[in-house]
Amino acid sequence: MSATFGDRIKITLFGQSHAQAIGAVIDGVPAGMHIDTDRLRAFMDRRRAKDELATARHEGDEVVFVSGIVDNVTCGAPLCLMIENKDTRSQDYNNVSVVPRPSHSDFAAFIKYGGHNDIRGGGQFSGRLTAAMCAAGFICLEILRTKGISVVSHVSRIGSIVDDKLNPLQSMEDVNSRLVTSSFPVINEKAKEKMREEVLKYKAQGDSVGGEIECAVYGLPVGLGGDFFGGLEALIAQAVFSVPAVKGLEFGAGFEFSKMCGSLANDSFTLDSTGKVITITNNCGGILGGISSGMPLTFSAAFKPTPSIAKEQNSVDLSDNKETPLVIKGRHDPCIVPRAAVVIESAVAMAIVNADGFEV
Amino acid sequence: MSATFGDRIKITLFGQSHAQAIGAVIDGVPAGMHIDTDRLRAFMDRRRAKDELATARHEGDEVVFVSGIVDNVTCGAPLCLMIENKDTRSQDYNNVSVVPRPSHSDFAAFIKYGGHNDIRGGGQFSGRLTAAMCAAGFICLEILRTKGISVVSHVSRIGSIVDDKLNPLQSMEDVNSRLVTSSFPVINEKAKEKMREEVLKYKAQGDSVGGEIECAVYGLPVGLGGDFFGGLEALIAQAVFSVPAVKGLEFGAGFEFSKMCGSLANDSFTLDSTGKVITITNNCGGILGGISSGMPLTFSAAFKPTPSIAKEQNSVDLSDNKETPLVIKGRHDPCIVPRAAVVIESAVAMAIVNADGFEV
Amino acid sequence: MSATFGDRIKITLFGQSHAQAIGAVIDGVPAGMHIDTDRLRAFMDRRRAKDELATARHEGDEVVFVSGIVDNVTCGAPLCLMIENKDTRSQDYNNVSVVPRPSHSDFAAFIKYGGHNDIRGGGQFSGRLTAAMCAAGFICLEILRTKGISVVSHVSRIGSIVDDKLNPLQSMEDVNSRLVTSSFPVINEKAKEKMREEVLKYKAQGDSVGGEIECAVYGLPVGLGGDFFGGLEALIAQAVFSVPAVKGLEFGAGFEFSKMCGSLANDSFTLDSTGKVITITNNCGGILGGISSGMPLTFSAAFKPTPSIAKEQNSVDLSDNKETPLVIKGRHDPCIVPRAAVVIESAVAMAIVNADGFEV
Amino acid sequence: MSATFGDRIKITLFGQSHAQAIGAVIDGVPAGMHIDTDRLRAFMDRRRAKDELATARHEGDEVVFVSGIVDNVTCGAPLCLMIENKDTRSQDYNNVSVVPRPSHSDFAAFIKYGGHNDIRGGGQFSGRLTAAMCAAGFICLEILRTKGISVVSHVSRIGSIVDDKLNPLQSMEDVNSRLVTSSFPVINEKAKEKMREEVLKYKAQGDSVGGEIECAVYGLPVGLGGDFFGGLEALIAQAVFSVPAVKGLEFGAGFEFSKMCGSLANDSFTLDSTGKVITITNNCGGILGGISSGMPLTFSAAFKPTPSIAKEQNSVDLSDNKETPLVIKGRHDPCIVPRAAVVIESAVAMAIVNADGFEV
Repeated sequence: MSATFGDRIKITLFGQSHAQAIGAVIDGVPAGMHIDTDRLRAFMDRRRAKDELATARHEGDEVVFVSGIVDNVTCGAPLCLMIENKDTRSQDYNNVSVVPRPSHSDFAAFIKYGGHNDIRGGGQFSGRLTAAMCAAGFICLEILRTKGISVVSHVSRIGSIVDDKLNPLQSMEDVNSRLVTSSFPVINEKAKEKMREEVLKYKAQGDSVGGEIECAVYGLPVGLGGDFFGGLEALIAQAVFSVPAVKGLEFGAGFEFSKMCGSLANDSFTLDSTGKVITITNNCGGILGGISSGMPLTFSAAFKPTPSIAKEQNSVDLSDNKETPLVIKGRHDPCIVPRAAVVIESAVAMAIVNADGFEV
Repeated sequence: MSATFGDRIKITLFGQSHAQAIGAVIDGVPAGMHIDTDRLRAFMDRRRAKDELATARHEGDEVVFVSGIVDNVTCGAPLCLMIENKDTRSQDYNNVSVVPRPSHSDFAAFIKYGGHNDIRGGGQFSGRLTAAMCAAGFICLEILRTKGISVVSHVSRIGSIVDDKLNPLQSMEDVNSRLVTSSFPVINEKAKEKMREEVLKYKAQGDSVGGEIECAVYGLPVGLGGDFFGGLEALIAQAVFSVPAVKGLEFGAGFEFSKMCGSLANDSFTLDSTGKVITITNNCGGILGGISSGMPLTFSAAFKPTPSIAKEQNSVDLSDNKETPLVIKGRHDPCIVPRAAVVIESAVAMAIVNADGFEV
Repeated sequence: MSATFGDRIKITLFGQSHAQAIGAVIDGVPAGMHIDTDRLRAFMDRRRAKDELATARHEGDEVVFVSGIVDNVTCGAPLCLMIENKDTRSQDYNNVSVVPRPSHSDFAAFIKYGGHNDIRGGGQFSGRLTAAMCAAGFICLEILRTKGISVVSHVSRIGSIVDDKLNPLQSMEDVNSRLVTSSFPVINEKAKEKMREEVLKYKAQGDSVGGEIECAVYGLPVGLGGDFFGGLEALIAQAVFSVPAVKGLEFGAGFEFSKMCGSLANDSFTLDSTGKVITITNNCGGILGGISSGMPLTFSAAFKPTPSIAKEQNSVDLSDNKETPLVIKGRHDPCIVPRAAVVIESAVAMAIVNADGFEV
Repeated sequence: MSATFGDRIKITLFGQSHAQAIGAVIDGVPAGMHIDTDRLRAFMDRRRAKDELATARHEGDEVVFVSGIVDNVTCGAPLCLMIENKDTRSQDYNNVSVVPRPSHSDFAAFIKYGGHNDIRGGGQFSGRLTAAMCAAGFICLEILRTKGISVVSHVSRIGSIVDDKLNPLQSMEDVNSRLVTSSFPVINEKAKEKMREEVLKYKAQGDSVGGEIECAVYGLPVGLGGDFFGGLEALIAQAVFSVPAVKGLEFGAGFEFSKMCGSLANDSFTLDSTGKVITITNNCGGILGGISSGMPLTFSAAFKPTPSIAKEQNSVDLSDNKETPLVIKGRHDPCIVPRAAVVIESAVAMAIVNADGFEV
């Protein structure tokens, strides 16, 4: 329960920001599955830093399959995939090795690992690792796709700017297909422009800003997940909170539930025109008792602002236990939320392929 | 990853609301630990329904240790603890067996288990199971206590009424000790009165209401938890979302982070009067990079309103696939939030004793 | 990986020899399975001590289902089953608490658990726990039975007396059905008589004797198990070596392989009369590369003699670290091998239902 | 429970014989451990094919650390190590893809993976994977070494030739240090000569031969391992039976126990000259009740002969389901047993670092 996730399709992550590579081993992928490298490249590209909203560290993020495939078809052996770290500038981290960056893992990792932690780029705690998560997530998303299950997400908030909400009663067909291919997916294009301005405003100040991703899974059969610790919320939460910078998660109406009464919160049952049992509302976000209800599964995740900012901050020099000001070098995202959409899609896919009742 | 939680101190739950009993097996508890049955009884009592705010089903919730102890001292064998179900009225569930209750597990479980699910009292999906979670949680809390780690929670919201917030910079000594022993813990006694009125108002309408629990863990050393799927947020989230009715979870500033800029969100380091490294603010809720920072660990969980309400609702008869009105019998809580405080304390304790770096 | 076995149908054991009860939680059993209590009783009866070859401790071994069933049909919730310990005489163990019995767990457990181990009847290390293993194994065997998979075993050796060998090319239909229902299963009835005499001879001397169980699984499809740590041998070995007193295990030709050349050891392929691929010999014991080959799966397990003997032995008083003679009281089996046949059947069934490719 | 082993120091293997690389991810290695690459190279060299007794496939087996270290010191992140496959000749396997080699995984893998299995060199079922197991095992052995725990093995049998037995009462100091560095470790040098002749005799006949490895672990504290599925035998067995070609395993007196009486089999306790509790004999092989006793832990593993032989064999063409003769090309070991010694040492080390009570 650390570098490895799942009981059925086990995903093991490895790598640090400035190690030779990052990657994942995926055990349990069915044999005979074709890996569409064009789709993979397009998917990885959605996470890649490429414009002024993101870090100046530019990686190709090419995924190499070290094992598990023959002629691009899975052979039943564990998949090992790797992404090289190329554009590293480890010298940027010389001054932070004993002066922890506020709200980064530095201090906690320094104490935990007795000073042996890999500080360069944040080591294994870096957002860089989400590239490996995405590559593994892509495999899981492809498995879902063969079952008619789709995952969609959008940037629902950056700072003070909000996007429209996904309609929890819609089907995949009703969702704008732009979202699935966009590097900055939003429902309302005007909101995107304002979000872009919001990020650039903070960037100009040497600052950063947080945000939210809303995500929906369409096409789930009734019956995935289960009781106790195998509930869908529990599984998805473990995966989503593994994404660096996520600090909040809610399913369906989420925190709004705390203000609601049961008669308004409850999702009554009815029949659709085909005689299928559906609910009139979907406050539960498609999960009843930890089990998929057949309605769209919806959730939102909150991201804290990138802790690496250009402004001077207060810290402590751990070598002599004295307070000291800190100016962070290195290249950082003023806002990681647009790039995180595809990471959240990956996380939820990893959870669903490991849910009880999911047949690979 | 279903009925069993954890890698180190493995907790396996069992039971249904109207089975002979509910319980837990706890594997990995150190030998030589004295079980203080008075403390256990007091702890279980905080969850027990006992007044007009709760269900009319009254259970003694006496915990019997079937194995793992000799003369009330743990012997190194797995602990099996059981709580009998005594005050069951299974006949109340005759009409719901094929007419699923809205926002309950009934429908999803019926489909998942091919109609063989135990509908009585909600089966294994019942809030009744939280009694077993509390008994297991008590053991974990006692293990934490021997390390000087304390867990405190309070009802931070019911419907429109909010309590004061826990100060994330305080130490355990500064927290009102009433919280730790109360069946309805709140910081501000006036808020409690209003909450009570809020619940009774909805109860009078045959309705229910949701709420929030805020929780803090004091005395954690720096260094518990870790990278990837072993992060503290991921572990705690899996445990907390296993609690029925929880639909939201946030750590530290949580969803507020999405509106913040980095320079205000970041927790700068400083030294306290003893020379210990602390942070000036604690927006991160005591977790950096998935690792405990030494500051109080804080989080909030949102609960949906009890879905069992007296008001007539719409449902579908699964035996003939026709829409039908439903009036729910049975005895139910108009608001489970006060009783859930101790369940949340249990969940977080289960997570922490399983965190990397925690030495039993 | 201690009290819990398996990834798919997780079995968690609990209990000590003189605890209130022993039992198991079984998570992942499909809903809708009827528990045939007559068959269960007959199965448990094969393990029960009942004649002069076994201990004088007589337990009814009635299995109570605490959870997981409604009207004797599984409901999808974890099964918790319990067997009470009734005929305990804890006072017999007063003199062994600080004087460890040779070749028992006493000494190692005393050190491991700091003297808090439950010495009565051997605590959780007692052969008594195999009753819980059998009850859990029965559930797994019933799951196998619905797939047409049968498990058969016999006492292949006690001391110097050997039974005939199972023919590794036979099908279940060819195997004498006596084996499946016998409390002392042997192929050759004359061997059984000699084995009985062998045991009584050692019993008369206040001594005990070891033996072997040979086991076969019929009706396995091709393709269960897998590579690395998920190989059938690895899975079965973990389960079988969990049975107290097992000290050796071999699959197919086993240790004989070490003396063989490849051309004689290899199992050539051919077609049977129906065109099905079979092997001409079955030295591999039905497992190729950790995967079932479709041939009968065969293995043998070696049991050490019961370490509790009436003869005086040398030990050490741990309270004052002085050598001391020891005479063991308590009631013990002069030979546990006949009673172990059904335990081995249980262990292999637990492994197979957890093998990759086994569909529940 | 497939590509991943262990609960504490989790080892995940990947790779196929002719994939780009094989390797392992090791999660849980303590930070600050120096990786001695010279020792690693010497260890890997003991497994490498290099003379006439082994395959003509010659690999350098250089271990590359993709992640987890900084300047050859572990940093707390998962170690990913890789070994490239360089000397592959995949064309040798063209004729076996639909004609399974007897006693290989081919047939079972073909059915299991629907013909998508990687047949080249045996895919993930190849003995080649033991190089990755050794690299991971080296890390575990180094962890053991820091605790004063040593693992030694020797070739105890090849065909009809046997070596002397390890004395189960000796300490590490008494064991000939040649064993620890030898590529063909035997106690009795004369036996080695005869074994060498035995292998060459079978090789000349286009045949192969099986054998046994005996292994001992010295310096274990009392108290590692535990009850139920966490017993040392169960853990070691899962690891050892994961090694391709292992078909038998016995601890201490092993199968001899089945012929023994308790009074001769039991290991009486006594005190050594320093007052430490030891046993007079060590038939139990250093394990009591699944827990280390403080005596040397001893076991033997039986290997089947390499199934790849030059002699023509019978098989079936799976493309048209007809019987066909098969002549195997490719390069193979006439006897893998000498090279397997270090693999067995690796397997047992992987098990021990994951035993309950082992403190990393």
